[in-house]
Amino acid sequence: MKTFNIDEERHQRIGFPEIVYGRSKPLDYVRNILEYYTDKGENTLITKLQSQKADILSEEYQHSFYDPVSEVFILRKTENDDTNAKVAILSGGTSDAFIVNEVYYTLSFLGVPSERIMDIGVSGIHRLLTRVEKIRQYDVLIVVAGFEGALPTVVGGLLPQPVIAVPTSVGYGVSKNGQAALSTMLSSCANGITVVNIDNGYGAAIAAIRILNMIGR
Amino acid sequence: MKTFNIDEERHQRIGFPEIVYGRSKPLDYVRNILEYYTDKGENTLITKLQSQKADILSEEYQHSFYDPVSEVFILRKTENDDTNAKVAILSGGTSDAFIVNEVYYTLSFLGVPSERIMDIGVSGIHRLLTRVEKIRQYDVLIVVAGFEGALPTVVGGLLPQPVIAVPTSVGYGVSKNGQAALSTMLSSCANGITVVNIDNGYGAAIAAIRILNMIGR
Amino acid sequence: MKTFNIDEERHQRIGFPEIVYGRSKPLDYVRNILEYYTDKGENTLITKLQSQKADILSEEYQHSFYDPVSEVFILRKTENDDTNAKVAILSGGTSDAFIVNEVYYTLSFLGVPSERIMDIGVSGIHRLLTRVEKIRQYDVLIVVAGFEGALPTVVGGLLPQPVIAVPTSVGYGVSKNGQAALSTMLSSCANGITVVNIDNGYGAAIAAIRILNMIGR
Amino acid sequence: MKTFNIDEERHQRIGFPEIVYGRSKPLDYVRNILEYYTDKGENTLITKLQSQKADILSEEYQHSFYDPVSEVFILRKTENDDTNAKVAILSGGTSDAFIVNEVYYTLSFLGVPSERIMDIGVSGIHRLLTRVEKIRQYDVLIVVAGFEGALPTVVGGLLPQPVIAVPTSVGYGVSKNGQAALSTMLSSCANGITVVNIDNGYGAAIAAIRILNMIGR
Amino acid sequence: MKTFNIDEERHQRIGFPEIVYGRSKPLDYVRNILEYYTDKGENTLITKLQSQKADILSEEYQHSFYDPVSEVFILRKTENDDTNAKVAILSGGTSDAFIVNEVYYTLSFLGVPSERIMDIGVSGIHRLLTRVEKIRQYDVLIVVAGFEGALPTVVGGLLPQPVIAVPTSVGYGVSKNGQAALSTMLSSCANGITVVNIDNGYGAAIAAIRILNMIGR
Amino acid sequence: MKTFNIDEERHQRIGFPEIVYGRSKPLDYVRNILEYYTDKGENTLITKLQSQKADILSEEYQHSFYDPVSEVFILRKTENDDTNAKVAILSGGTSDAFIVNEVYYTLSFLGVPSERIMDIGVSGIHRLLTRVEKIRQYDVLIVVAGFEGALPTVVGGLLPQPVIAVPTSVGYGVSKNGQAALSTMLSSCANGITVVNIDNGYGAAIAAIRILNMIGR
Amino acid sequence: MKTFNIDEERHQRIGFPEIVYGRSKPLDYVRNILEYYTDKGENTLITKLQSQKADILSEEYQHSFYDPVSEVFILRKTENDDTNAKVAILSGGTSDAFIVNEVYYTLSFLGVPSERIMDIGVSGIHRLLTRVEKIRQYDVLIVVAGFEGALPTVVGGLLPQPVIAVPTSVGYGVSKNGQAALSTMLSSCANGITVVNIDNGYGAAIAAIRILNMIGR
Amino acid sequence: MKTFNIDEERHQRIGFPEIVYGRSKPLDYVRNILEYYTDKGENTLITKLQSQKADILSEEYQHSFYDPVSEVFILRKTENDDTNAKVAILSGGTSDAFIVNEVYYTLSFLGVPSERIMDIGVSGIHRLLTRVEKIRQYDVLIVVAGFEGALPTVVGGLLPQPVIAVPTSVGYGVSKNGQAALSTMLSSCANGITVVNIDNGYGAAIAAIRILNMIGR
Repeated sequence: MKTFNIDEERHQRIGFPEIVYGRSKPLDYVRNILEYYTDKGENTLITKLQSQKADILSEEYQHSFYDPVSEVFILRKTENDDTNAKVAILSGGTSDAFIVNEVYYTLSFLGVPSERIMDIGVSGIHRLLTRVEKIRQYDVLIVVAGFEGALPTVVGGLLPQPVIAVPTSVGYGVSKNGQAALSTMLSSCANGITVVNIDNGYGAAIAAIRILNMIGR
Repeated sequence: MKTFNIDEERHQRIGFPEIVYGRSKPLDYVRNILEYYTDKGENTLITKLQSQKADILSEEYQHSFYDPVSEVFILRKTENDDTNAKVAILSGGTSDAFIVNEVYYTLSFLGVPSERIMDIGVSGIHRLLTRVEKIRQYDVLIVVAGFEGALPTVVGGLLPQPVIAVPTSVGYGVSKNGQAALSTMLSSCANGITVVNIDNGYGAAIAAIRILNMIGR
Repeated sequence: MKTFNIDEERHQRIGFPEIVYGRSKPLDYVRNILEYYTDKGENTLITKLQSQKADILSEEYQHSFYDPVSEVFILRKTENDDTNAKVAILSGGTSDAFIVNEVYYTLSFLGVPSERIMDIGVSGIHRLLTRVEKIRQYDVLIVVAGFEGALPTVVGGLLPQPVIAVPTSVGYGVSKNGQAALSTMLSSCANGITVVNIDNGYGAAIAAIRILNMIGR
Repeated sequence: MKTFNIDEERHQRIGFPEIVYGRSKPLDYVRNILEYYTDKGENTLITKLQSQKADILSEEYQHSFYDPVSEVFILRKTENDDTNAKVAILSGGTSDAFIVNEVYYTLSFLGVPSERIMDIGVSGIHRLLTRVEKIRQYDVLIVVAGFEGALPTVVGGLLPQPVIAVPTSVGYGVSKNGQAALSTMLSSCANGITVVNIDNGYGAAIAAIRILNMIGR
Repeated sequence: MKTFNIDEERHQRIGFPEIVYGRSKPLDYVRNILEYYTDKGENTLITKLQSQKADILSEEYQHSFYDPVSEVFILRKTENDDTNAKVAILSGGTSDAFIVNEVYYTLSFLGVPSERIMDIGVSGIHRLLTRVEKIRQYDVLIVVAGFEGALPTVVGGLLPQPVIAVPTSVGYGVSKNGQAALSTMLSSCANGITVVNIDNGYGAAIAAIRILNMIGR
Repeated sequence: MKTFNIDEERHQRIGFPEIVYGRSKPLDYVRNILEYYTDKGENTLITKLQSQKADILSEEYQHSFYDPVSEVFILRKTENDDTNAKVAILSGGTSDAFIVNEVYYTLSFLGVPSERIMDIGVSGIHRLLTRVEKIRQYDVLIVVAGFEGALPTVVGGLLPQPVIAVPTSVGYGVSKNGQAALSTMLSSCANGITVVNIDNGYGAAIAAIRILNMIGR
Repeated sequence: MKTFNIDEERHQRIGFPEIVYGRSKPLDYVRNILEYYTDKGENTLITKLQSQKADILSEEYQHSFYDPVSEVFILRKTENDDTNAKVAILSGGTSDAFIVNEVYYTLSFLGVPSERIMDIGVSGIHRLLTRVEKIRQYDVLIVVAGFEGALPTVVGGLLPQPVIAVPTSVGYGVSKNGQAALSTMLSSCANGITVVNIDNGYGAAIAAIRILNMIGR
Repeated sequence: MKTFNIDEERHQRIGFPEIVYGRSKPLDYVRNILEYYTDKGENTLITKLQSQKADILSEEYQHSFYDPVSEVFILRKTENDDTNAKVAILSGGTSDAFIVNEVYYTLSFLGVPSERIMDIGVSGIHRLLTRVEKIRQYDVLIVVAGFEGALPTVVGGLLPQPVIAVPTSVGYGVSKNGQAALSTMLSSCANGITVVNIDNGYGAAIAAIRILNMIGR
């Protein structure tokens, strides 16, 4: 039984292919989708795929890549050419690495080189201030933060590029599940920051690509 | 007593001047700020300024402009050259006009021509479908919606540009205050939409300018 | 000890029998209920029965049926005659299959044929548009969606039948647990959509039967 | 400037015309819409139109009707033929009259006779029990309730018709704004009740018409 | 190290002894408390004690009693004399048995006989109506309900005794965790119902004892 | 048109008459209800009646009584015999007087004498401690508190009677609307406190009467 | 009737006198309290007293002081000696002046000189950085912020003193009512910041005094 | 790959070193950080480190200390000199021991002796009252409470020192996750209490140190 309708013309229509959300799909459904793409000779990226499922699929697909931190699964990974990175992925600490990596591998899969700059959180603001000129080189800034989520506000006040803020579910008490970080980012008094859903590293990567496509057109 | 520190180098630092939030400032404070800028020979934009305050200031400042729908107050308004619009502002209905106009006048103030396309809500999807090719011409799409807020999702699935979604506080019951529209936009399964705060038309305008600045650099 | 009072005349009173909610009942309680119905020679449907309990009961009851995706357990399943389906069950993706199936098997148990049409989500709206005429044939539409839950709104704007919207708990961040999808569906600006509880596929099926009973009376 | 795109083929497409939401539209916008319809010789229904606006429009449009309890404004009201009512509108008390009337006048506008049965709340359950046989005559039941919102559950357990539950914003403390009533109705253990947004009497009326259209096709 | 200060005069001060909350206490702490009471020759009741801890303690204390459904642990259980019950514990279904039993065993421990009457939920209201005269015999009614929690409202409208409502965490979607049932009970338009915390069967039992003590004084 | 069904046998059935909620009823509806009762020669109590309505009715009904603090309206007030009070109404401060009075006048209307003891809040605990023996004399304690709502917990730990806690909407920030006080009261670690809805002084009074009726039977 | 019990020994017990919350108290109650203190020859501070009440009282009490921005009313105001300020009150903008002033006048009333430093918000971080050495001179820092509330986090990362964060209700959308600012401050990854209720400038002032009292003891 | 930037001058800047949050960091990241500090000959404190990770690290680091109740991990623990304690850590019961200990060990690590006083909850207020004079000796009071969280309010009304309130996630129903305790503490009518995030014992310890540093300067 074929139970899904792949949105095949998506790439042509909006500039990037359909990507698969892995969390709530049973293993069999995921396997069917991989088969479908393999038959067509195309690559696939699956986000938020739990390690139990990924371990089985990794054995079945020799050329696949799986990052256990971000739970990203890629069939036939391409290399990221960091020397020419267009996007900087900033974060306040290594606790957010699971989303930083989701952004990084999604961009890599879609052919966009990026660079990760972690541990520049606002409670030690000097670590950010000394890197301002370096960060000014990138076309798009993706800023990832959990807990109180203030990093994008400060970045937005210092730099002129598009800033895409990604709240993460890292935290406890009132910041559990990322709601506090999300509210902070949306309320930011800094001008012109935009926000994606909590833990939606993948969506931030695509938003960056929408912007890069405009720069290039 | 001078009780405020204008952020004077903001334009140079991040590409646009400081803009004033009017809602919670007493009339006297707003008047001081206007005086400050007038003395320097500069323009000013004040957002969400209630009409009672605006009416008084309009009398005091001959060349000012006030739009009562969006509560935007501008000292020395410049004309919007619609024939070369770079940004399209889409909305589901005239109920959202107060935010559509906030975007429109903010962009205009900052020298960016834009065009407003209202009444293309998802409950009558054909009204959007027949305009897809026209909308494809713009560099950035700002999509404004209250109630269930589904318009950005559909737009994002049809078009490749950067999509900045603005939830509005229009609605009642569970959609009162814009929380439902905000959640919809953040949860959107369409790829790469970004979101600003509820009723934050001004922030969406600035986000568009950050992108346009990159295209031009 | 007999600790329950079966509502025996429910079928006669409101047109369908009592159905059992399995999640929070200990195995012993569920077994007692099955015994009670078996003694009377009647069929039973249990919803949301975890697999650990279902596996044990499947061994004890030879003619039972269990669908692990939807966690529906049926004593003596009847066949669904799809050729004459009265109800269409639409969904945005295979992630919602667990609720689509709960609707499907509940309707089947109560003798109402239905058809499942998955993967027609709003981020690729053309997949829905090309099926509009086919969907127009059914008497009742049950539309299942997680994440941002916009599908029922679009369906309601295109088709005239009763639309019963079922939000699912599929999603993460602000759409975790289905609250965002629920709000979207309740706020829908499309006219005349009705909604049931998050993940309540069973309730949607019964609502459809209430309507079909009226058509037939 | 024509700032709206009326969805003109809606009646043909889904069986009822576009209806106007009045709350957040400035008077000028509402007047434009009325003019548009008047020019085409068509009737119009505006919901949730505040009395300040309605009083002005009532003077301008001689044949208009305005119900201050429900804030429904109708251009050229038609009579409701109660003797042949197809829909019963039930409520727990006169506090909910503003929504009962919104349902009543919307149905009336669309040519569907209905009957209002108020004050049968669950805290005096006998008032409902003595009316069960009378209520059994209607094709569709719309049940309106604020506070704890338990009436639809009890009605659904006693009668076999489609039950559309409408939570209202009547109440205080935890039931302020209708959230408690909404939760009760969605959680109802009675089978097959469906729900619309808080205070959405208009949506309930349209949902009833979708069902009646099916009975008639 | 003695890390706790038992409130020893509580019984004398307010009519019942201190009772131990087991959920968040490590096994060692619980064991210390049991030892303390045993040394004084007194009985102890521990509520919400997980089965892993209870199984170990059951082995160590020969005369203890543990009910796995309600997670109540009692050192030296006394018999409940049902023939002279003063309190009725009503519930809508066997899914709520874990709290019904917590009430039952707490009352029993404190020497108050009670009777459990389950499965009289509001979706089949006749099951309650036929028992009204029987229920009228008790001095206090404790009404336990999850999901939409409407049972106490209906009971309160039919009977004159003190009604203590206990919402339970049974349910899913909007009724998950008991918030919907709690809101319903607090919003109840029936007069004079009082409410305790979600799943707080123990508190309801003590509230009943406060009332019974007054009757007796 | 008679649009309400008075629940006439309520007194006989549950021990107290129907009482009218005034907030959301239009003046005409309230006037109809008063007329109905006056015709039968019976008294009436209306709770939460806004002063604009009350002022008009006070002129029409010579023997009526209206307390603007609690918004209670009574037709033919009876005197409260404080010397034999059975119920004590405790509160933390005069900010809660509007609910203290609602309890007081409701009890008075139903023939139950009570006494008000205000300003014994927990931030100055000695004011309560010096009154413990006096308070021990009453049969039922109704404890009213806004802000953090801790008073009932402390009272419950010191005294053995039934304690009915009433959270009020007095406060700001996180305690605005009474949600914090309600949570505190429901979470109270003191044993056997019961709670009514925020600002529901009337409900607390009726709950006290249910208890007093038991003591007397 | 004397309806309040002033907590007279509070000053002796905890180091500061009782202060009056004005918002929810009727004018008569406030007047009684003022009279009480005047009779004793003592000063009084009333917080959050609406201007309608304050205007009347200002006429009655010649030596009173009222600040309409913060709604603080003081009987016999004392002068603030700014030259020796011990507390700095920092804020992100003049929109927060109503709380900055509440702190300022409360401290002044209690004899503690303080200084206000506004407009150093995080979106223009340099305005704070250039003042770090000046701010280092104060013993206690009170940091007031609305919208996204990130200022205390940055201050806490730069300076070693006690930091008391006060979220304000300034903002709109997700930051309306101060919930976002509160969450940010509680979640702050900066170490050792403490927080008071939204808009509770008065509480922050008292917390500062508790600390200063320790320094002095 | 070095993926973190230690904030090395933090001690010099704000008076205490950077401390590591263990919950969301993978074992490898934690190990890297430990190595880094060990190489520099410095001590380290890691908070909220799950026991699976701690058990492995405890084997690798001979001189480490791990408290499984509070999940605090310390490299080279120093002894706490209780005889000269400056901080008292008060709590309502042993259920809160996991946070009491987090405070205790953090203070100990930073060289500040403290004392733990548990089981003085408000439902048995006399246990607190008899200890008031003893508690008056400390410079700073940290008050830890779950459930309804009323203890800090009562303490603040009795004693003059700085009071830092720590809500814990201990509780169920409306107090689950600590939200009720947090609201109570923020709403406290007692004057000048400050609050930290739910379960943030570590933050409370640092806040105490900020105060103690001022006393000493």
